[in-house]
Amino acid sequence: MNNVEIDITALSCPIPAETEHERITLGYGEGGYLTRKFIRERLLPRFDNPTLRQLGDAAILNIDSRRIVFTTDCYTVTPLFFPGGDIGKLAIFGTVNDLAVSGAIPRWLSLSLVIEEGLAWKTLDRVLDSIQAAAASACVMIVTGDTKVVPRGAVDQLFITTSGIGELEATAPPGPELLRDGDVLIASGPIGCHGASILCAREHLEFDPIPTSDCADVTAPLVALQRAGVAPRAIRDATRGGIAAILQEWAESSRRSCVIEETLIPLNAEVRSLCELLGLDPLHLANEGTFVLATAPELVEQTMEILHQHAVSSRATVIGKITPRRVAPVMVVRGIGREVVLDEPIGAPLPRIC
Amino acid sequence: MNNVEIDITALSCPIPAETEHERITLGYGEGGYLTRKFIRERLLPRFDNPTLRQLGDAAILNIDSRRIVFTTDCYTVTPLFFPGGDIGKLAIFGTVNDLAVSGAIPRWLSLSLVIEEGLAWKTLDRVLDSIQAAAASACVMIVTGDTKVVPRGAVDQLFITTSGIGELEATAPPGPELLRDGDVLIASGPIGCHGASILCAREHLEFDPIPTSDCADVTAPLVALQRAGVAPRAIRDATRGGIAAILQEWAESSRRSCVIEETLIPLNAEVRSLCELLGLDPLHLANEGTFVLATAPELVEQTMEILHQHAVSSRATVIGKITPRRVAPVMVVRGIGREVVLDEPIGAPLPRIC
Repeated sequence: MNNVEIDITALSCPIPAETEHERITLGYGEGGYLTRKFIRERLLPRFDNPTLRQLGDAAILNIDSRRIVFTTDCYTVTPLFFPGGDIGKLAIFGTVNDLAVSGAIPRWLSLSLVIEEGLAWKTLDRVLDSIQAAAASACVMIVTGDTKVVPRGAVDQLFITTSGIGELEATAPPGPELLRDGDVLIASGPIGCHGASILCAREHLEFDPIPTSDCADVTAPLVALQRAGVAPRAIRDATRGGIAAILQEWAESSRRSCVIEETLIPLNAEVRSLCELLGLDPLHLANEGTFVLATAPELVEQTMEILHQHAVSSRATVIGKITPRRVAPVMVVRGIGREVVLDEPIGAPLPRIC
Repeated sequence: MNNVEIDITALSCPIPAETEHERITLGYGEGGYLTRKFIRERLLPRFDNPTLRQLGDAAILNIDSRRIVFTTDCYTVTPLFFPGGDIGKLAIFGTVNDLAVSGAIPRWLSLSLVIEEGLAWKTLDRVLDSIQAAAASACVMIVTGDTKVVPRGAVDQLFITTSGIGELEATAPPGPELLRDGDVLIASGPIGCHGASILCAREHLEFDPIPTSDCADVTAPLVALQRAGVAPRAIRDATRGGIAAILQEWAESSRRSCVIEETLIPLNAEVRSLCELLGLDPLHLANEGTFVLATAPELVEQTMEILHQHAVSSRATVIGKITPRRVAPVMVVRGIGREVVLDEPIGAPLPRIC
């Protein structure tokens, strides 16, 4: 521990030129292979404990007989406003969703704002209005917070960190360790909408209709599944890294394979066009209200029925299944029936997506 | 609610020149008058609920029969390393202290990192080592987290947000609503060390000895006071805005005055020199391990005895008392016995202090 030593000079001099591997790159924040490597190699060895080791979207804590769920996320999205949402709505629903996919009822949120000096009040007010509306619609209370204003150039406009606490409803919270061969994979709706929306907004791409973010609260259908006694084995909202990152994680931690069928994957026409134009795979694009779940084959019918009763999951579709380990963790049956390995991108397809 | 409208153009054009009052200034993040105004005018009306309305350092939540305490803070300090600490140690102890001054035992932390692309791994590793050491020494577990890497220029090096959950020990948690006339004000040690340390480190001021931050975990003496049955009526760690901001808040919410005696306030020689040189009032300088408490007069002796048994509060001193409201919320008896009003600075003495 040398953190109490006086070492001002080290930070006040320009850092000498070093090779690229000595510096952190954008890919480490993208939610895929490099993010997992960063967590595995730099965070887990330092902070290891049984709760953190689960590496879920949220931590489950035991307080007396009650189990609560705790999560945090930082939102750095640019632009601040995009079709279908804004950084405020995203910061509330993103954290609410992390609690919901962990089997919890979202209850309390903290709100930490880092604001760039000179940000227009009307921009900030619009974001705060959006936070208010999202929190009210998700029935969560903002109970504590922090506000920092930093000099121009120290942050780009506005970053928001929301942490959340929920109460666990499920006796056995969902998790990839519960996955079994033959389990069915379901996507709750069209994929890639959030990533496509941000990409178009940032690059001023003109599409008609313009891709709109799926930013939404997913609590209702997940609570309904639990209460109907058809709790899924695993659930994740497919944010950074998209559906591909979730399937990769599930396959790795269950030591099985996820096999999905390309023709079954729900996709909006405008997202399809964008992906074809730019050579992107929608499986890698971020979602903010679309989730993937895995459930036992005998529960599929009832699960689909319940999902279809809720607006946010009304277009839910079976997309594949869990199988014994194949040649790679994630396989895609492409259009004509050929099963191919789903590549995991190592670079950064799109920074500041959420 | 118009946050779902498409409004990309508004953000992609340079914002036209407006008058200064239309934009947020640094002062709103300094923890003093403008921060309270921001909370009162823009946050409370939107997010109002009984828990948030307390405006404590942390929120108290009821989960069944158990009460837990929840807090969050964002750390944007520059430089990342300074005499006596660094952003990592600060992010752990700062959040731990917010729980401790609320009457809780700190238990679980979340860790959210926003890293600038190109930050040296060795800088990040040094901060992570410091987080590990601080969390271990404070007996808290990091149970969940988030990492974002943003492009060069979108954030200055590294910002950290930690949220914390603690378990409430006290039956009646401390709070300014409990203050009574005649209560005694105690400072746990020399004041202004953190602010002085950051100022010297940032401006490359040469002092011998150099001011060293008081960054430390204050849990031990506060738990000891509680367990000895001499729980203070109010406790706050005197961070942004310094001792002055705490006294101002206490006086306002209790509708009383805080009267302190300048000659009683503990001050290190180097902090005194720095303040004299630059014309600063140490009452406005930030602390990160020094707290103020108010206790009943009959408990002062036992309180001081317990405080003096712990390293972090071994130099605790009585500095003043609570009185019926005088001409101003906070009065200082200056050296020669003249009682003057303590000004509340409206501007920003020093941004990015924590």
